[in-house]
Amino acid sequence: MSVTAVPGFEAAGVASGVKPDQTPDLALVATADRRPVAAAGVFTTNQACAAPVQISREHLADGHAAAVILNSGNANAATGEPGRDHARRMCRTTAAALGCQPTDVLVCSTGLIGIPLPIASVEAAIPAAAEALAAGDAAGRRAAEAMLTTDTVTKLATAPAGAGTVVGGMAKGAAMLAPAMATMLAVLTTDAPATPSALHAVLRGAVDASFNTLIVDACTSTNDTVLLLARATDDRPPIDGPSPAFDALSAAVTEVCTTLTAAMAADAEGATKLARIVVRGAPTTDAARRAARAVASSQLVQCSLYGSDPYWGRVLSELGASGVDLDPERVDIAYNGITVCRDGVAATHDEAALRDAVHGRHIQIACDLHAGVAEAEVLCTDLTHAYIDENTGTS
Amino acid sequence: MSVTAVPGFEAAGVASGVKPDQTPDLALVATADRRPVAAAGVFTTNQACAAPVQISREHLADGHAAAVILNSGNANAATGEPGRDHARRMCRTTAAALGCQPTDVLVCSTGLIGIPLPIASVEAAIPAAAEALAAGDAAGRRAAEAMLTTDTVTKLATAPAGAGTVVGGMAKGAAMLAPAMATMLAVLTTDAPATPSALHAVLRGAVDASFNTLIVDACTSTNDTVLLLARATDDRPPIDGPSPAFDALSAAVTEVCTTLTAAMAADAEGATKLARIVVRGAPTTDAARRAARAVASSQLVQCSLYGSDPYWGRVLSELGASGVDLDPERVDIAYNGITVCRDGVAATHDEAALRDAVHGRHIQIACDLHAGVAEAEVLCTDLTHAYIDENTGTS
Repeated sequence: MSVTAVPGFEAAGVASGVKPDQTPDLALVATADRRPVAAAGVFTTNQACAAPVQISREHLADGHAAAVILNSGNANAATGEPGRDHARRMCRTTAAALGCQPTDVLVCSTGLIGIPLPIASVEAAIPAAAEALAAGDAAGRRAAEAMLTTDTVTKLATAPAGAGTVVGGMAKGAAMLAPAMATMLAVLTTDAPATPSALHAVLRGAVDASFNTLIVDACTSTNDTVLLLARATDDRPPIDGPSPAFDALSAAVTEVCTTLTAAMAADAEGATKLARIVVRGAPTTDAARRAARAVASSQLVQCSLYGSDPYWGRVLSELGASGVDLDPERVDIAYNGITVCRDGVAATHDEAALRDAVHGRHIQIACDLHAGVAEAEVLCTDLTHAYIDENTGTS
Repeated sequence: MSVTAVPGFEAAGVASGVKPDQTPDLALVATADRRPVAAAGVFTTNQACAAPVQISREHLADGHAAAVILNSGNANAATGEPGRDHARRMCRTTAAALGCQPTDVLVCSTGLIGIPLPIASVEAAIPAAAEALAAGDAAGRRAAEAMLTTDTVTKLATAPAGAGTVVGGMAKGAAMLAPAMATMLAVLTTDAPATPSALHAVLRGAVDASFNTLIVDACTSTNDTVLLLARATDDRPPIDGPSPAFDALSAAVTEVCTTLTAAMAADAEGATKLARIVVRGAPTTDAARRAARAVASSQLVQCSLYGSDPYWGRVLSELGASGVDLDPERVDIAYNGITVCRDGVAATHDEAALRDAVHGRHIQIACDLHAGVAEAEVLCTDLTHAYIDENTGTS
């Protein structure tokens, strides 16, 4: 059910002491034979990206990796050259323990920003993590657990990728979630054979269709990283461009990413509602996405969701302020299929049915701009007292 | 202390019944002789702008106005053609009561979106408002009170405008506040002589320097309107372009708008903190503003403020995600003058002094990008439980 659902991959999760409560905070994923395989990564667009993001980008330049070392509890972000040195040391120590090259190790960190990584604790725990590497479900779960921060549950997924191959994945992320990308880490594995460039194309498309459609607080983090390692187990020629095998792998990677996105949304900090904002009838897909994101990231819309209040006036206002060219007097808005606004004004509707619909956990707000045929969907959560409680202090 | 601080202007505030609790909800400002004077307006950039915004824009086309009629409790937004008809009727009924042309009346509404305006109640109350028009402080205060929604205090300001003239103003606004523009209404008056085009230039500059620097929740409303009426009381030639008199009027209008902005910030829904985000060393003023707005509108930064937590890592992350070209490893960040981040990493500082500083109501976060010489400031508030309570229901 995780990265170890794929033959040829092992995982481990141990406690290094970075998290003061001694819960697991160091995860390791590696190929069973410690040899590098085709790999791809998608990283945060934040210019203030963390040290591990910078080092993983360097190490991925050759399109191959043998292992991923991840720590939670400290983001190793806003830590300057010492931070990069720490990230490199994590790779070096991991490589020494595994018997591979440091440049074949990718590194991820998640947690507080701006605090030097306790590198001695991390380095001291890496050999134990390497020692603990194992195939099978339990090891995959332990790795997934060790990457969590404010998450309350592990996030795992698998999907068949055609011709007997499979994609497995694990992720963390519960806040600071916004497109391009969510504050999140995810590691995926597959035994489908693919070249690094095909793998990158597959991963880029899957991330856009999944993680990048989730908004919790519209904050773009310093550490976002999604990695995909592909280790072929037979001698088929690698996937390298448009083909049925490429499509099967794409579909499987997208399915895993989508499942992990839903798990992150369901575990979003303090959230009591999960809303799917659908914008239809937009002039372009980009416009549809921009409009949907404007609605999804609105504090006022999110507050309305928390209050089970179908206040469509705020939705229309956000569409109008989104920068998308539209005629507000052609816009229709429906909550869970009940149209409350038609042609930009209030529409008569079944009040009792509407009240019932918006009291549930899952709400769909569908907006038809009647300005084209493009559409897009974005997931968001409500803004709650508990979200504020989670984010008023660093401890 | 309000629009009636200016000779030649009268005001009134009455209860029309739009607000169910029978508190004042209808304000009227008019020239004492009911004759049109030079006037200028700045309106919301939201495409889904309310009916009164559309009608006021039409009526301002000739650069003159004799009166402004304002109602609170209902925004007359997302109300389509019937809404525009209601806004026109408000102008027509006001003009009939005052003996001026309907096109010389401007109209503003504020309150809930998407609900038809109870026009009969409003029209029935307009003659009483006209009857109540008076000069002097008390009348000005009553008008300022009648335009409030979730505001807890009236917002008034005056400033001398040179050569014995004065600028007076009143405003409402406590949420849905974001640049371009805040959810707010403001009416200003002056007895400085000016042409409509000079007046518009003065107002545009003042709004950019004041209301547009305040962010509460980054939501751009449907009804934002700032109006300025200038009624000369002597025979000086009107201000019509760069001159010392233009500068004096500009300074006075900016001062009044800045005072009203500070009053709105102080009254922001549920806020316990007021933060001034200063970005220095930016390549351009636009970049400085964009960076400051990114920090100011961040839910995570606003939550940190609420928790009196100087979590500069979130500030740096928002700067990095703002789209402004910067080197995160050159950025310095200081809270109330105490540098906590230098060259993008933690700086040693006096922990006790910092804790004291961030526990106050007023916090300044100064960010130096070291990427140029431009700077900008944006005001913001914290994100609190009370903000959520104010915005979870429409009632």
